[in-house]
Amino acid sequence: MPELTRMTWRETSGAARTAIALLPIGSQEQHSGHLPMGTDTMLAEAVVDGALAGLGGDPQVVRLPALPFGHSPHHLFAAAVSLRAATLQAVLDDVLDSLATTGFRRVLIVNGHGGNDEIMRLAVKQYSLRADVALAACSYFSLGTDAATPGHAGMFETSLMLAAHPDLVREPAPRPEVTPPPLFAEPPYPGLTVERHGEWARAGGSTDDATEASTAGGAELFGRRVSALADAIRAFDRATRESHAHLEGTA
Amino acid sequence: MPELTRMTWRETSGAARTAIALLPIGSQEQHSGHLPMGTDTMLAEAVVDGALAGLGGDPQVVRLPALPFGHSPHHLFAAAVSLRAATLQAVLDDVLDSLATTGFRRVLIVNGHGGNDEIMRLAVKQYSLRADVALAACSYFSLGTDAATPGHAGMFETSLMLAAHPDLVREPAPRPEVTPPPLFAEPPYPGLTVERHGEWARAGGSTDDATEASTAGGAELFGRRVSALADAIRAFDRATRESHAHLEGTA
Amino acid sequence: MPELTRMTWRETSGAARTAIALLPIGSQEQHSGHLPMGTDTMLAEAVVDGALAGLGGDPQVVRLPALPFGHSPHHLFAAAVSLRAATLQAVLDDVLDSLATTGFRRVLIVNGHGGNDEIMRLAVKQYSLRADVALAACSYFSLGTDAATPGHAGMFETSLMLAAHPDLVREPAPRPEVTPPPLFAEPPYPGLTVERHGEWARAGGSTDDATEASTAGGAELFGRRVSALADAIRAFDRATRESHAHLEGTA
Amino acid sequence: MPELTRMTWRETSGAARTAIALLPIGSQEQHSGHLPMGTDTMLAEAVVDGALAGLGGDPQVVRLPALPFGHSPHHLFAAAVSLRAATLQAVLDDVLDSLATTGFRRVLIVNGHGGNDEIMRLAVKQYSLRADVALAACSYFSLGTDAATPGHAGMFETSLMLAAHPDLVREPAPRPEVTPPPLFAEPPYPGLTVERHGEWARAGGSTDDATEASTAGGAELFGRRVSALADAIRAFDRATRESHAHLEGTA
Amino acid sequence: MPELTRMTWRETSGAARTAIALLPIGSQEQHSGHLPMGTDTMLAEAVVDGALAGLGGDPQVVRLPALPFGHSPHHLFAAAVSLRAATLQAVLDDVLDSLATTGFRRVLIVNGHGGNDEIMRLAVKQYSLRADVALAACSYFSLGTDAATPGHAGMFETSLMLAAHPDLVREPAPRPEVTPPPLFAEPPYPGLTVERHGEWARAGGSTDDATEASTAGGAELFGRRVSALADAIRAFDRATRESHAHLEGTA
Amino acid sequence: MPELTRMTWRETSGAARTAIALLPIGSQEQHSGHLPMGTDTMLAEAVVDGALAGLGGDPQVVRLPALPFGHSPHHLFAAAVSLRAATLQAVLDDVLDSLATTGFRRVLIVNGHGGNDEIMRLAVKQYSLRADVALAACSYFSLGTDAATPGHAGMFETSLMLAAHPDLVREPAPRPEVTPPPLFAEPPYPGLTVERHGEWARAGGSTDDATEASTAGGAELFGRRVSALADAIRAFDRATRESHAHLEGTA
Repeated sequence: MPELTRMTWRETSGAARTAIALLPIGSQEQHSGHLPMGTDTMLAEAVVDGALAGLGGDPQVVRLPALPFGHSPHHLFAAAVSLRAATLQAVLDDVLDSLATTGFRRVLIVNGHGGNDEIMRLAVKQYSLRADVALAACSYFSLGTDAATPGHAGMFETSLMLAAHPDLVREPAPRPEVTPPPLFAEPPYPGLTVERHGEWARAGGSTDDATEASTAGGAELFGRRVSALADAIRAFDRATRESHAHLEGTA
Repeated sequence: MPELTRMTWRETSGAARTAIALLPIGSQEQHSGHLPMGTDTMLAEAVVDGALAGLGGDPQVVRLPALPFGHSPHHLFAAAVSLRAATLQAVLDDVLDSLATTGFRRVLIVNGHGGNDEIMRLAVKQYSLRADVALAACSYFSLGTDAATPGHAGMFETSLMLAAHPDLVREPAPRPEVTPPPLFAEPPYPGLTVERHGEWARAGGSTDDATEASTAGGAELFGRRVSALADAIRAFDRATRESHAHLEGTA
Repeated sequence: MPELTRMTWRETSGAARTAIALLPIGSQEQHSGHLPMGTDTMLAEAVVDGALAGLGGDPQVVRLPALPFGHSPHHLFAAAVSLRAATLQAVLDDVLDSLATTGFRRVLIVNGHGGNDEIMRLAVKQYSLRADVALAACSYFSLGTDAATPGHAGMFETSLMLAAHPDLVREPAPRPEVTPPPLFAEPPYPGLTVERHGEWARAGGSTDDATEASTAGGAELFGRRVSALADAIRAFDRATRESHAHLEGTA
Repeated sequence: MPELTRMTWRETSGAARTAIALLPIGSQEQHSGHLPMGTDTMLAEAVVDGALAGLGGDPQVVRLPALPFGHSPHHLFAAAVSLRAATLQAVLDDVLDSLATTGFRRVLIVNGHGGNDEIMRLAVKQYSLRADVALAACSYFSLGTDAATPGHAGMFETSLMLAAHPDLVREPAPRPEVTPPPLFAEPPYPGLTVERHGEWARAGGSTDDATEASTAGGAELFGRRVSALADAIRAFDRATRESHAHLEGTA
Repeated sequence: MPELTRMTWRETSGAARTAIALLPIGSQEQHSGHLPMGTDTMLAEAVVDGALAGLGGDPQVVRLPALPFGHSPHHLFAAAVSLRAATLQAVLDDVLDSLATTGFRRVLIVNGHGGNDEIMRLAVKQYSLRADVALAACSYFSLGTDAATPGHAGMFETSLMLAAHPDLVREPAPRPEVTPPPLFAEPPYPGLTVERHGEWARAGGSTDDATEASTAGGAELFGRRVSALADAIRAFDRATRESHAHLEGTA
Repeated sequence: MPELTRMTWRETSGAARTAIALLPIGSQEQHSGHLPMGTDTMLAEAVVDGALAGLGGDPQVVRLPALPFGHSPHHLFAAAVSLRAATLQAVLDDVLDSLATTGFRRVLIVNGHGGNDEIMRLAVKQYSLRADVALAACSYFSLGTDAATPGHAGMFETSLMLAAHPDLVREPAPRPEVTPPPLFAEPPYPGLTVERHGEWARAGGSTDDATEASTAGGAELFGRRVSALADAIRAFDRATRESHAHLEGTA
């Protein structure tokens, strides 16, 4: 798997025209009492590396080092290392601009943290207006037709960490009840975003109970996330490899 | 229906503690050859006014004048009047900050233009970190369990305009074929955002065929959008009215 | 009167080369106890629409929807919905840039709120450096040789609202005395701007007494404002239509 | 005359509560073929120093060193050293904030360059919202009831330079005719700002003919500008010294 | 060695009051034909991890994940992934602000890339004005009394990479001569910074010849860099641990 | 000595291609009880003027008026007039951009204030990426092989002020002891920047004792600073005059 950090600049430059550049992004933030701060970054990297291993170099992907910090202002009450929204936008814009300057025409950002999602999608929309590129973005947990609500530091992430980094998973404690339940646990209406000040600090650090996570369930969930990302990369390649050649010079 | 623009400042100030402030936002951008530039703004306003009429003052809502301009950089090839993403973020942040300064605790933004969606959701997330408020945001077309893909200047919007502003709908022309189809017409993979430079200019101004829109179908679609928004407003009120009282002083 | 919001993009694009694009801007802010929050926006729109009706299409003007929010930080103590100076600058810059991209060569901003005045004039200066355009800006109340000091929520604005929106004018109360009088009521020296912290909150919401406003006086004042704007539009057209053709390609 | 640059910090700090801090601002830009680049800065300083000499320490004024650079983007075709509008705003905001931090309650900015005028007035408006201060701003050429249109590098400025820095005045050449005349020479309508791209480069470097300037006329004009500024400073002092004491603690 | 990415938030929060937080920063940029893009990041991490291993937990240090991207605009001609200066400033400011919010009082940034140096030192100066913290910053290559000029992709970095990541070092080619020599190779005067446009592209990718690097020399150089950093961490701890206790509450 | 402020624009423009433009920058900040606020600006100007007089026009230098304000946030507790870092960056960027627009190819910034140093060096690095120029920057006190640590308001600056502006030097008082000594007085480790909140306010206004400064010592120190700057200007000229001609058109 070609890693940009280990390649020389001529190898990088030589791959730019045809390869897809892939940037994983994550966060450093509280994940309840039993998961580590870097959970989102580690999971994004693990799913990416699993998918790239499965693809076996077809299509060709140049993997960038992960951005280990994300946008986690709602977790600053609990030791997060957070970039402001404008900062994360600027980082993504600078990385995209650097890659386009080098000659990359196709870039994919793979995200592991919910708080980065809109910022990332906005970043690829913005940059694709400025240069003749095809850009893609996804959160590994919401890819594919069987994507489930991933939650935060609950069953889903605990299961995946049991698969990817079992040594870093401590014993989860049962989740405390809070009344009324936090708005993100019971969304008032489909399609309506509701944000209430102080909700995370009030609700404790997780969205659902982690005690039901298991190693076996984690392995299956993890395998499905890896497959979905591999499929998404193939789909992005198909949608842009041929048509890009087809369209060359028209845009 | 209380409109902020027609109220005195004491009326506004007096309503702030209990009422929901509602800001419609839209765009001025190409909507193919048969719909007017202000389609998104007019539809957001029409759905909002329909929903508020239906609610009959319960819950109490103070409606702000619509922001008639949105983020439409992908339509600048075709006469759009567009705010940059940072500008729209700033406008929404300033409006939310003003309302919170006045004493409003609950604000809802109702959007009529796809290009505003992430920026609006990000704006309410950001501002809810800074003040003790409960903020909501939605796009009128993606509310409720039966929300369909609305498209742009195609069957959906043409139908709604036939219901809301029939005098402004010209005869739609059949949609030209483009090969390969634009990425937004055939998304490569569920959950994957893909943006290709120049796609809108290449694809023409609409996402699907408007010729099948009808007055009868428009009336039904419009009625459902109005109902969904009214339901969403009631749900937002329920979720924040009582719990807000309950939580008073804790956040 | 061609309104951009009701035109298709091809109609807009077709008019751009020769027509003047006109953007009204206003505010949402306290206007004492008897005038509504949207007074400045409504008056700017009323004067604009009166002037355009009087011009009868010569010169051709494409009227944009009004920006309903302005820069009113000095009224945030009293329910204003205010854009920061940098935000308003950005909005005006984006609108001007969009219009120039569409092909408009001549744009006029008509303002209804004192707090927007410098920002608006600065915006047209700045943008005219960047593109080959001729830009104009005015506040409707200070146009022409007989322009009087308009004040805020006093005799002038109350009179105009009696002419334009009599149903929205409540009974004005006599203005309370404050000692010392606010600096904006007694400017210390001609040409000297003096700003003292907290002056508006201290002085109450108006600059002079509204009780002398009358329907008859309002009609006359309103008619003169409409005429002055119509004259200014004609003068802008004369100054830029011929010379622009004359200069074509030289700048 | 107390100059901040020559005072120790304790002298500065000790004067802050009662004295008026005064900041001259100017520009470095083309002034036709016969006046030096620093004309605006030198004239602002000369008028300030004349006025302060005349006042003889009553009221007490602490004079800051002049900001020698201003906002002259329209003269960048001709060797200007120009600050962008946002930069000049930031410089003025930082200076005002520093002075308020030191304890100054009253600050006056005296400007010598037309292009700085709106930015300066906006800066004092903005800053007076943030701290309990009374701020004033003026352009030395538009003070008082007999203020005339000063023009640029024409009769007015040449006359003043003959009074203040005769050794720096070269022989003026007659002004070339340009057709059509520049918009700033023939404003289309009172109260209407019109800006056309490239107007200064087209019109040559001055607004009117400098050949009629004389030493005698310059001395009289200069004396009147000095008197007007001295009067304005006295007026600012009267308006804010007593009332400020009166209001102490209320704002 | 406590790594923040592997710690839970309570472990992080618990360590904040007494531990030093350490952030490595690097770059992704050309390092001639024989060293990988991530050289600066890898070397910063290797020196940090060597020093922390040597310190054995005294003083206590919480190591953050490295920021893998730096400010490399001068290498954008050759495949760099570069953050603009303002972006890197924002990232560092956000990280420092997050750590201070968590309760860290002492933070050290260890840099591996020359282009980050001023930005990093400026960042700690700026942030230390805003919060009651003691912040330190260094580039691993310029620490201690025996610090040599490190160069770029020449003898120094090649030697260190032979020690830290020998598998990633390709065969260096002799360095091409360029006439005149680049300014960074022959600085015109001690203490004078001189920057000439296009110098790196003209000079090739390195500052000096890498062919003399050896495994043995690399091991010694690497060991000295590790010792110097360990000494610097001890010195920072001594200077701030006691005095901070001593000063508690005074600043 | 050609001063830009006294030159006409054609003289400026004519000199641009070959001359070096030189911008002095300083500060207005506390310099203990015996030196004036403008010390840094006055010393930068005095050293510059001494060096230019010594050079006698070879190489040709166009001297800009000094920027009298610098970045002194650490002295805001004591009457400084300070620009924020971003503001100073913007000012320097705007000045460099203006000069390059005029046609200057070589610019030198000479600084008199430690707090400006990184910002100035960063500014010339940044701007040299954008235009085909050769830019230099130095602090007058750290030029040459015999540069000593200058300190602040201590022996070094007091000595130089005795040479340059003896009338502005008051009697220095002995420096109070503070325990522990400030970090800038005893740097913990070579190459390590350490910044502690509140250090300047705690340490008093100077870094070392000024009572040993003497007129004779000042004259010698001043002469050496003047010589070093003259040498640096000659070296900058040599390094860029010939090679620039040599390279013309290649970058």
